[in-house]
Amino acid sequence: MKKVAIGIDIGGTNTVFGVVDEMGQVLVKNDIPTPKHGDVDRYITDLSAGVQEMIESVKQLSSDIEILGIGIGAPNGNYYSGTIEYAPNLSFKGVVPLVELVKKRFDLPVIALTNDANAAAIGEMVYGGAKGMKNFVMITLGTGLGSGIVVNGDLVYGHDGFAGEIGHTIVVPNGRSCGCGTPGHLEAYCSAPGIKRTAFELLAHYNGGDSELTKYTFDELNSKIVFEAAERGDKIAIEAFQRTGKLLGRALADTVHHLSPEAIFLFGGPTAAGDYIFKPTKESMEEYLLPIFANKVRILPSELKSGSAAIVGASALVWNEINK
Amino acid sequence: MKKVAIGIDIGGTNTVFGVVDEMGQVLVKNDIPTPKHGDVDRYITDLSAGVQEMIESVKQLSSDIEILGIGIGAPNGNYYSGTIEYAPNLSFKGVVPLVELVKKRFDLPVIALTNDANAAAIGEMVYGGAKGMKNFVMITLGTGLGSGIVVNGDLVYGHDGFAGEIGHTIVVPNGRSCGCGTPGHLEAYCSAPGIKRTAFELLAHYNGGDSELTKYTFDELNSKIVFEAAERGDKIAIEAFQRTGKLLGRALADTVHHLSPEAIFLFGGPTAAGDYIFKPTKESMEEYLLPIFANKVRILPSELKSGSAAIVGASALVWNEINK
Repeated sequence: MKKVAIGIDIGGTNTVFGVVDEMGQVLVKNDIPTPKHGDVDRYITDLSAGVQEMIESVKQLSSDIEILGIGIGAPNGNYYSGTIEYAPNLSFKGVVPLVELVKKRFDLPVIALTNDANAAAIGEMVYGGAKGMKNFVMITLGTGLGSGIVVNGDLVYGHDGFAGEIGHTIVVPNGRSCGCGTPGHLEAYCSAPGIKRTAFELLAHYNGGDSELTKYTFDELNSKIVFEAAERGDKIAIEAFQRTGKLLGRALADTVHHLSPEAIFLFGGPTAAGDYIFKPTKESMEEYLLPIFANKVRILPSELKSGSAAIVGASALVWNEINK
Repeated sequence: MKKVAIGIDIGGTNTVFGVVDEMGQVLVKNDIPTPKHGDVDRYITDLSAGVQEMIESVKQLSSDIEILGIGIGAPNGNYYSGTIEYAPNLSFKGVVPLVELVKKRFDLPVIALTNDANAAAIGEMVYGGAKGMKNFVMITLGTGLGSGIVVNGDLVYGHDGFAGEIGHTIVVPNGRSCGCGTPGHLEAYCSAPGIKRTAFELLAHYNGGDSELTKYTFDELNSKIVFEAAERGDKIAIEAFQRTGKLLGRALADTVHHLSPEAIFLFGGPTAAGDYIFKPTKESMEEYLLPIFANKVRILPSELKSGSAAIVGASALVWNEINK
């Protein structure tokens, strides 16, 4: 009997789902659009049909399969209550009792929900580079900056299920505007759009500075283009990553001063820039750490594959519940 | 049989110790000077003699007493290794294997060490206002700003035993000098000396501003004098507390964004200022919290008695180990 778990990741645009084995291999996957219409019941019906169809297809591959449960990652997903609460990027209003709704459709031992960054942290612990680690932090760099914190081998949900919002800690008092409304947050600087914003600040500061980035509109530029320019030696692109790493490292020093983790994993598009982002982050973190923490905390790239990480992370919730 | 625990608090100037019952009552206490000579063996001999004498005296009060263990709070005290490591305010050099040395003198089921702020957090959980809480943070305001973090009912020691250094998170990038060498740390602003420094900044800014604090030298002024001036309506003194609370609240919002605790307890001399410090701290924290955390996290005064908190906190380590 091959044991598998289903992972569902609810994103602003698409909902992706897959069947994942104990090694973190995705056996089959599929997706549906995340609706803009805000009708939860219709969405659950569509999602359930999609997942059911996927289950049938995997059972055709092998009859010897046992499905242990469904793990779901979603913005503002609350592990304790199983609800999605006031998610700014989803069309559903208020509090959605997602786990309860999914339980009505599937009779499985485990059906669990958390937010996408927490799911990624559990994925790293179950399948990735954090195997065997008891204290680590996962940072996901994308449209925003998400985080998942593991202490004593358990994900930190906090009192209300919403712990791990490191992206909304302040790095520059009264600094850049953040999507949440409070200025100066880490994710306004250290995220894919944050890198672009830094590049634009530098273009303004250096009056273009002979950079190839002068050719792009704000709408066109993205962190991948900045990385490619950095690889060609573009000074403004390189400095954009240096500044991003400098602020990220300083913020991570604050996190270390809270939690003293063994390692901090970075995940997401901007990490493809490798040393351009990892090196200044590590150097800056070390600069701001108390001597007792010096050279103790590793900053590592996530070992989750970028294409399937969302599904794999969500599915890891199931293994994590079973192994508790 | 009345069960009791011994608490030892090793401070820069004195080492205080006492016998504490399950209700957190100190039955008897004593102290010896913490030596300036750096001779650990001589210190342990003196400390053991003092504790032994105290044990004899408590046994004379009642023959029906069972001593369960010794809990020790000390700067840079490491729970995992039982060592004091490079404590800047103690004369002992390098790494002191304190638990090992104490075990040679006392044959008791539990002998445990942590730092003073962690001990205070455990004290709050075992005897104080955090009874029954699973996720909370303890902030101790004194010469510095110490912190102890509890997640899922356990103190967070982190990977290496040194977690909980919130005093060394950055609130003002490139700001005031901190004793540790890195500028802008929370404890440079939000601590007893921090309040004094803020008062001096305000005296400079307002050119004295008709404040009674103009009468004090830097050596003379302390946070208690600032509080007393605030009570008499001194505007600079009141603003000093407001600014302290504003920065503390902002920093605590960062802590909530990491950990989402149920409550944050404030302990120490400056908390005697009551609303002068609690009110701006709470208001500022709320201002900086994400909407999902609004009005969820209480800021509470510690219920540990200031005179005996160090002993009581250290003794709580013993009950905490036994109840694990």
